[in-house]
Amino acid sequence: MGSDSNFPIMEETSAILKQFDVEHEIIVTSAHRSPARTRSYVKKAEKCGIKILIAGAGAAAHLAGSLAAESILPIIGVPIDSSPHRGLDALLSTSQMPGGVPVATMGIGKSGAKNAGLLAVQILALEDHKLRSKLIQYKKYQAKEVEIKSRKIQTIHARNNKD
Amino acid sequence: MGSDSNFPIMEETSAILKQFDVEHEIIVTSAHRSPARTRSYVKKAEKCGIKILIAGAGAAAHLAGSLAAESILPIIGVPIDSSPHRGLDALLSTSQMPGGVPVATMGIGKSGAKNAGLLAVQILALEDHKLRSKLIQYKKYQAKEVEIKSRKIQTIHARNNKD
Amino acid sequence: MGSDSNFPIMEETSAILKQFDVEHEIIVTSAHRSPARTRSYVKKAEKCGIKILIAGAGAAAHLAGSLAAESILPIIGVPIDSSPHRGLDALLSTSQMPGGVPVATMGIGKSGAKNAGLLAVQILALEDHKLRSKLIQYKKYQAKEVEIKSRKIQTIHARNNKD
Amino acid sequence: MGSDSNFPIMEETSAILKQFDVEHEIIVTSAHRSPARTRSYVKKAEKCGIKILIAGAGAAAHLAGSLAAESILPIIGVPIDSSPHRGLDALLSTSQMPGGVPVATMGIGKSGAKNAGLLAVQILALEDHKLRSKLIQYKKYQAKEVEIKSRKIQTIHARNNKD
Amino acid sequence: MGSDSNFPIMEETSAILKQFDVEHEIIVTSAHRSPARTRSYVKKAEKCGIKILIAGAGAAAHLAGSLAAESILPIIGVPIDSSPHRGLDALLSTSQMPGGVPVATMGIGKSGAKNAGLLAVQILALEDHKLRSKLIQYKKYQAKEVEIKSRKIQTIHARNNKD
Amino acid sequence: MGSDSNFPIMEETSAILKQFDVEHEIIVTSAHRSPARTRSYVKKAEKCGIKILIAGAGAAAHLAGSLAAESILPIIGVPIDSSPHRGLDALLSTSQMPGGVPVATMGIGKSGAKNAGLLAVQILALEDHKLRSKLIQYKKYQAKEVEIKSRKIQTIHARNNKD
Amino acid sequence: MGSDSNFPIMEETSAILKQFDVEHEIIVTSAHRSPARTRSYVKKAEKCGIKILIAGAGAAAHLAGSLAAESILPIIGVPIDSSPHRGLDALLSTSQMPGGVPVATMGIGKSGAKNAGLLAVQILALEDHKLRSKLIQYKKYQAKEVEIKSRKIQTIHARNNKD
Amino acid sequence: MGSDSNFPIMEETSAILKQFDVEHEIIVTSAHRSPARTRSYVKKAEKCGIKILIAGAGAAAHLAGSLAAESILPIIGVPIDSSPHRGLDALLSTSQMPGGVPVATMGIGKSGAKNAGLLAVQILALEDHKLRSKLIQYKKYQAKEVEIKSRKIQTIHARNNKD
Repeated sequence: MGSDSNFPIMEETSAILKQFDVEHEIIVTSAHRSPARTRSYVKKAEKCGIKILIAGAGAAAHLAGSLAAESILPIIGVPIDSSPHRGLDALLSTSQMPGGVPVATMGIGKSGAKNAGLLAVQILALEDHKLRSKLIQYKKYQAKEVEIKSRKIQTIHARNNKD
Repeated sequence: MGSDSNFPIMEETSAILKQFDVEHEIIVTSAHRSPARTRSYVKKAEKCGIKILIAGAGAAAHLAGSLAAESILPIIGVPIDSSPHRGLDALLSTSQMPGGVPVATMGIGKSGAKNAGLLAVQILALEDHKLRSKLIQYKKYQAKEVEIKSRKIQTIHARNNKD
Repeated sequence: MGSDSNFPIMEETSAILKQFDVEHEIIVTSAHRSPARTRSYVKKAEKCGIKILIAGAGAAAHLAGSLAAESILPIIGVPIDSSPHRGLDALLSTSQMPGGVPVATMGIGKSGAKNAGLLAVQILALEDHKLRSKLIQYKKYQAKEVEIKSRKIQTIHARNNKD
Repeated sequence: MGSDSNFPIMEETSAILKQFDVEHEIIVTSAHRSPARTRSYVKKAEKCGIKILIAGAGAAAHLAGSLAAESILPIIGVPIDSSPHRGLDALLSTSQMPGGVPVATMGIGKSGAKNAGLLAVQILALEDHKLRSKLIQYKKYQAKEVEIKSRKIQTIHARNNKD
Repeated sequence: MGSDSNFPIMEETSAILKQFDVEHEIIVTSAHRSPARTRSYVKKAEKCGIKILIAGAGAAAHLAGSLAAESILPIIGVPIDSSPHRGLDALLSTSQMPGGVPVATMGIGKSGAKNAGLLAVQILALEDHKLRSKLIQYKKYQAKEVEIKSRKIQTIHARNNKD
Repeated sequence: MGSDSNFPIMEETSAILKQFDVEHEIIVTSAHRSPARTRSYVKKAEKCGIKILIAGAGAAAHLAGSLAAESILPIIGVPIDSSPHRGLDALLSTSQMPGGVPVATMGIGKSGAKNAGLLAVQILALEDHKLRSKLIQYKKYQAKEVEIKSRKIQTIHARNNKD
Repeated sequence: MGSDSNFPIMEETSAILKQFDVEHEIIVTSAHRSPARTRSYVKKAEKCGIKILIAGAGAAAHLAGSLAAESILPIIGVPIDSSPHRGLDALLSTSQMPGGVPVATMGIGKSGAKNAGLLAVQILALEDHKLRSKLIQYKKYQAKEVEIKSRKIQTIHARNNKD
Repeated sequence: MGSDSNFPIMEETSAILKQFDVEHEIIVTSAHRSPARTRSYVKKAEKCGIKILIAGAGAAAHLAGSLAAESILPIIGVPIDSSPHRGLDALLSTSQMPGGVPVATMGIGKSGAKNAGLLAVQILALEDHKLRSKLIQYKKYQAKEVEIKSRKIQTIHARNNKD
């Protein structure tokens, strides 16, 4: 992530990866304030066998793009709402990459950070049957949760309408 | 892709996949006009061992999202500029997915379509050394091409400045 | 509605329907998290003689569109402000439907939810004289309320200007 | 429609209504340039048993809203791209109605105009079994058309890939 | 103004008019909820010799436009931030009038409301020497106020820099 | 106007003023490129008895604002679409004036330019009975023109539907 | 700065200049409310040997542009978020200057104000070796700070994951 | 510049520098496609005594930012309209830099490119009396040109009004 202030957002990514038992590390490094550190991290990561890089950044969010410039690993970008443009700047800075240098852009903020983790899991699951089964379970659970919430709302609604 | 009119854009995806010798197929199916076909395609694709789904769609672009709703495969979405909003509607409809259902969103239009192909290659290259080598070559070639273009521009500029 | 968090908004729809004695039910179902449930609800609704479906959803709001994909009933969509784009994403995702699959889009948030209920009443009133009379009463009352508010403001204004 | 220049867009509405044999008339009247005519048209329309009003207008598109102010009939609004804002002004002016005065807003331009016609048909079909059957046919045909287009694209793609 | 909730904004207009001793009245009337009242007010106002109409409204802000449709008096529109679009909807709905029906649009919110009052004073001052002198005084005072504020800031700044 | 390239737009203003026999002059002067000329023009204009200043400018359109800074005359601003922002920059630069310095902002482009002329006429008509009568005629003619256009469209529509 | 309310933002500029021991002064002057003061300040500044002018302003932010119109010194503009448009109006009003009259536009708000100070230092450092060394130090320190923050986050993350 | 396709825009910068006899060079290098080349160019440029770097780039325009990350020279960024977002993406990606890493952002496109050249000249003129004189001349000439254009327009206008 580009700044320590992004941590409350990017924890969502970490939570998902933990839930799926996917090993990962979190570092702060900035495309603009610590470009050398960012580059050397990419090189180190590739050597260590890290498979996917996830970048969360706000405003003129170049972090994901600068990882994509240096690596052939899949890069996932999470635009963060940290300026008066409310994340639109981060979304455009992350997604509008030139042809040849892809960034897999997520939605802005916490949902996007959660989805970044899930996309990473989906990619890893292509070659990992256990992850695949967990994803299928996760999807089923997600649908069930909707049903439970629906019942809760229907109960509240019925109660309100009695009054 | 959601409509045959998207073909000139999505050909970019196909061209990249062909360049990297990645087998793929193209179909037209709409989240809104042929929802049953879209669903049955997803199920068939999962069974056939298709690993990644790429969806190109414009306006209220739900195609990538509806694939993501039905599958645990990585879904890549290409927003297409096909309305007076110039792709902003497609970008937001593709990227702003709820937590739990990721879509890897690309930039709008041809660059995005090209990058969708490349991201797919990057994902497959995680377990394919030949693809990995090709990607490294591709990145080197890309950097070289910039140099060649630079020399061309510098020559034009020098010539103009003589006059 | 796509999420239980939309309930405080969509209660406005319910309140209007109750005010006009129009039978209705509320459920939570998501285009992305519970697509099968969404589809089976549509089929059940059509069979039960439900006449109009109203969908409230935020962000990449596909719920109304996915109902419209499955049904020939009139679908009313309420975009909800639940992301940093402040409902613009939901508005575009709901309104920019492809030709052939209409969604009757309302304004963002509580006013839109209230109007969704009223539009449903207006549609049902086409074949229901009692509803028609109630609507005429409602419109008259609405105009009166403006007059009452005007008088209140004029009194405050007059008082302030005395000081 | 608010101006004769909107005719090429609003013909799409008329074409759909004709396709479903729904009687309709087209007039030009402006919320701003001919407000009295607009009002008297609404009153006449209600008396003649016209069931639905469809308004197409661009820029500060008040036409649908001014119909909704005068009538309890369902009002469908088609925002038209006729200013440098490319229809965003018309979309917001049409959809952001105050609570109490609904306008069923369509997407911008030709798709929206087509969908306005279809929504009208869907509303009328609630009490007209013949229209209902036609709508079911229409939906099936729409899905088929996607398949045909898909085959066409697949053929072109296969041919291109041979070369 | 279109709603009593606009009063805290439109009081700014009234305060300026009071400061310049310009007689005025405030009423609440809605283009959409009380169209007949709005029209009859315009007609009454024209007869009473009211010279300028100022309309403050939010969202799909049609109030200024509907006054302009009915009257040849100068109409001043104040867009109000009362929806998730933060006044952009009101700004476009107020300013993007068709050729032939002008609305003098102010900025969004309190500054705009204040300026609506001042523009009215400027118009009346064309034929009123006393108002003209007051405006010249007002402008001088405004410039002086800037100087006073500057001195205040410079003092704070000097004090801070000592520490 | 801020640039000679604005002439095709601002001719609309001139055409309206000519139609109402209102004496006027057109000059090019820029807030940024010729600020001294702009100021001296304002001073001269006030002395010559010019009553209203109309400024047409694009991009960071400061012309109307810089006239308003220098004068107590009513200032009308016409935002012009002359940059990739399609006039949004000009609209915001013209309308978002600070409290104390009003600019009567019109819509973007030709309609706005035409309306600038009309607003000037409406202001002058407050003290000119002949102008007032002409405005009433103009409004009637405008409504009639709508009727004529309506008949034209209805004839075309009837003819098309016969085929 | 255009208003004393901008002080909490523009203090960031002053803090940076102080940190680099660059002499500077702060004044409040408005392009619209005190245009003569603004002009005379520019002239005085040029004579006193002031080298760079930094303008912070919100809404229709003309201050930087009006300095640029009067001076050949480098002008730095800081758009400030002080209206419902959240600084977009100020950004466009500051950056979209006509060819011939440059304004060096910064990001919106505090980061932009800080960067305005730094850009000024960078310009002055072109002819000042001491400033140059300080800038190199600053850049190194900035990169180090990122490392420190990273370690902090990694510690928190490790601790959380133990639980 | 980030791509050879930006040359028609960035020639404007070169033309201004040539007009002021400021030595300069043009190269193509991409933040994303040739990051190593971009970095080594910055280092070389600093060593060669190059004083100012100007970057023109479109879409997720990171070029200026990546120069600013690597250098303490003043960096000028020109956002280029090369995507469906019409330069808004480039404007936000260029201007919304984090505190500590300034980029002097110009307007979008040709005017911005021209102004980038002029800002560079203004910076160099701080220590170069000849450049300073030329700038003063340039500014005078600019104001004169406005007068000439004004006369041209006034002649056309007078002629048109005779007819």
